[in-house]
Amino acid sequence: METFNIHILGCGSAKPSLRHNSSCQIVDIRGKLYMIDCGEGAQVEFTRQRLNMNRLGHIFISHNHGDHVFGLPGFISTMGLLGRTAELHIHGPQQVEKLLQVTLETYCQGMDYEVHFYPIDTTLHQLVYEDRSMEVWSLPLKHRVPCCGYLFREKPGLPHIRREIIDAYGIPTSQINNIKAGASWTLPDGTVIRHEQMTTPPTPTRSYAYCSDTAYLPELSKMIRGCNLLYHEATYPAALEALADEYMHSTSQQAARIAADAQAGQLCIGHYSGRIEDETAHLHEAQEIFPNTLLTREGMVIKVK
Amino acid sequence: METFNIHILGCGSAKPSLRHNSSCQIVDIRGKLYMIDCGEGAQVEFTRQRLNMNRLGHIFISHNHGDHVFGLPGFISTMGLLGRTAELHIHGPQQVEKLLQVTLETYCQGMDYEVHFYPIDTTLHQLVYEDRSMEVWSLPLKHRVPCCGYLFREKPGLPHIRREIIDAYGIPTSQINNIKAGASWTLPDGTVIRHEQMTTPPTPTRSYAYCSDTAYLPELSKMIRGCNLLYHEATYPAALEALADEYMHSTSQQAARIAADAQAGQLCIGHYSGRIEDETAHLHEAQEIFPNTLLTREGMVIKVK
Repeated sequence: METFNIHILGCGSAKPSLRHNSSCQIVDIRGKLYMIDCGEGAQVEFTRQRLNMNRLGHIFISHNHGDHVFGLPGFISTMGLLGRTAELHIHGPQQVEKLLQVTLETYCQGMDYEVHFYPIDTTLHQLVYEDRSMEVWSLPLKHRVPCCGYLFREKPGLPHIRREIIDAYGIPTSQINNIKAGASWTLPDGTVIRHEQMTTPPTPTRSYAYCSDTAYLPELSKMIRGCNLLYHEATYPAALEALADEYMHSTSQQAARIAADAQAGQLCIGHYSGRIEDETAHLHEAQEIFPNTLLTREGMVIKVK
Repeated sequence: METFNIHILGCGSAKPSLRHNSSCQIVDIRGKLYMIDCGEGAQVEFTRQRLNMNRLGHIFISHNHGDHVFGLPGFISTMGLLGRTAELHIHGPQQVEKLLQVTLETYCQGMDYEVHFYPIDTTLHQLVYEDRSMEVWSLPLKHRVPCCGYLFREKPGLPHIRREIIDAYGIPTSQINNIKAGASWTLPDGTVIRHEQMTTPPTPTRSYAYCSDTAYLPELSKMIRGCNLLYHEATYPAALEALADEYMHSTSQQAARIAADAQAGQLCIGHYSGRIEDETAHLHEAQEIFPNTLLTREGMVIKVK
């Protein structure tokens, strides 16, 4: 199956920690890399995980809090020092632009590549980027500042050819692309072989939903229904739900409830508060509601299945 | 002897590295901490080295390149999250102010402490800060943007009392502070005991010079003459002197020449280019000219003797 992996570069929350970096993930879809959030230290972790800057064209920022953006100046200017020439596209709430402006005007003079910023309306669930094989949708979240998550979804591929049928009817291989695209085939005796007879359906598409930072938001589950993998922030343990409400974050169990309601294939949690001493207990709380849950950790690569 | 230590938080250069953080040091003088430069990752390294944010009141920035300032937004906002209330004073070239403004306006709303910025004229060698027991002087350097080093110097203390003399003449201990301050003492028979007889000179003052980033600058040695410890950047090995000239950096041997000309007590070098594979060879090059040289490394604490 084609590559669709999530690399965890940082899964801590706002305060510094010796255990976790600030938020940052890389989505690898068929060898193209997309960054989500860019906390301080992202550039070093990117290098440590031997990821290739030349494969990265887009960065998606969820919201303009320091622990999600303070890695941008260093990441952008280091790519300049390393001789990048390909354009870089950054998507995120309008508020992010100011930091980008200072970065580009003050620290990136003479850099050989261009950075483009695309403001995102965080109140809407809409398509914000697509290429030939994938789409990215914004997911309105509920936080103290404008904030959205992102849904990465593969586009349906072409149907698969049933080689044994093609061979049995002696259909020329030159017709395979037409048949994949929907054509039928007429034999010399006038018999029509329907497209459906010659193909099996395309590989099911996969999707990954990134939801951070957010208060518990039940309606989110509708937007991400059936996603194969969900990252949902779980800043606090269940016992600190009052704190989660106050700071518009989620607990382990709220994250799990979203995953259950969305019928997600798998849940991974992160954005751990510094108050969490025992992440295993945190995990177990979530697993009580949604068993197929795992804890993110720096260096982890999660396959979207 | 009173504490006068240098903590190395980062000694790498512009490009990211898995071996070194970007530039950052802490000067600890009698328990008060002063930060010099603040590259990305400084806040985490500060925590790792168990330094106390409440003891830090001043940050001195050498110049406005990313690898010397990109840690400021995270460091400043994290101290806010941790509940700091004491004012923070940041000194550096005018160019640094823009990043500080964005940081404070955008990411530090509602923070309980104030940040003050003091622009420094990097063309002048002058006193930029002093308190009761120490002074900080700017050191004009030669780099691609306005840049200065900093000389940290203890102020002379009071002379030491010669206890045996005080006792022999039966001079009351209530007079000790007066005598330290310069007073003489008259015995009942009219004999005058001179201040010099009752005291030994104050402990010699110590100084630390931080010189980064800079091209080889022979006149620098006059400004730092006799410093006990010199940190001088040594971005390139001697073989790459042409690159050092081009980018206005120094080689290992140029750093050592400054230390020798300045009659420094000890030299420590850093700001290693990513091209340096073997730091030991780099060290040996410097030691050929100035034997008492050491390589800085993250986590190292160097006593100023």
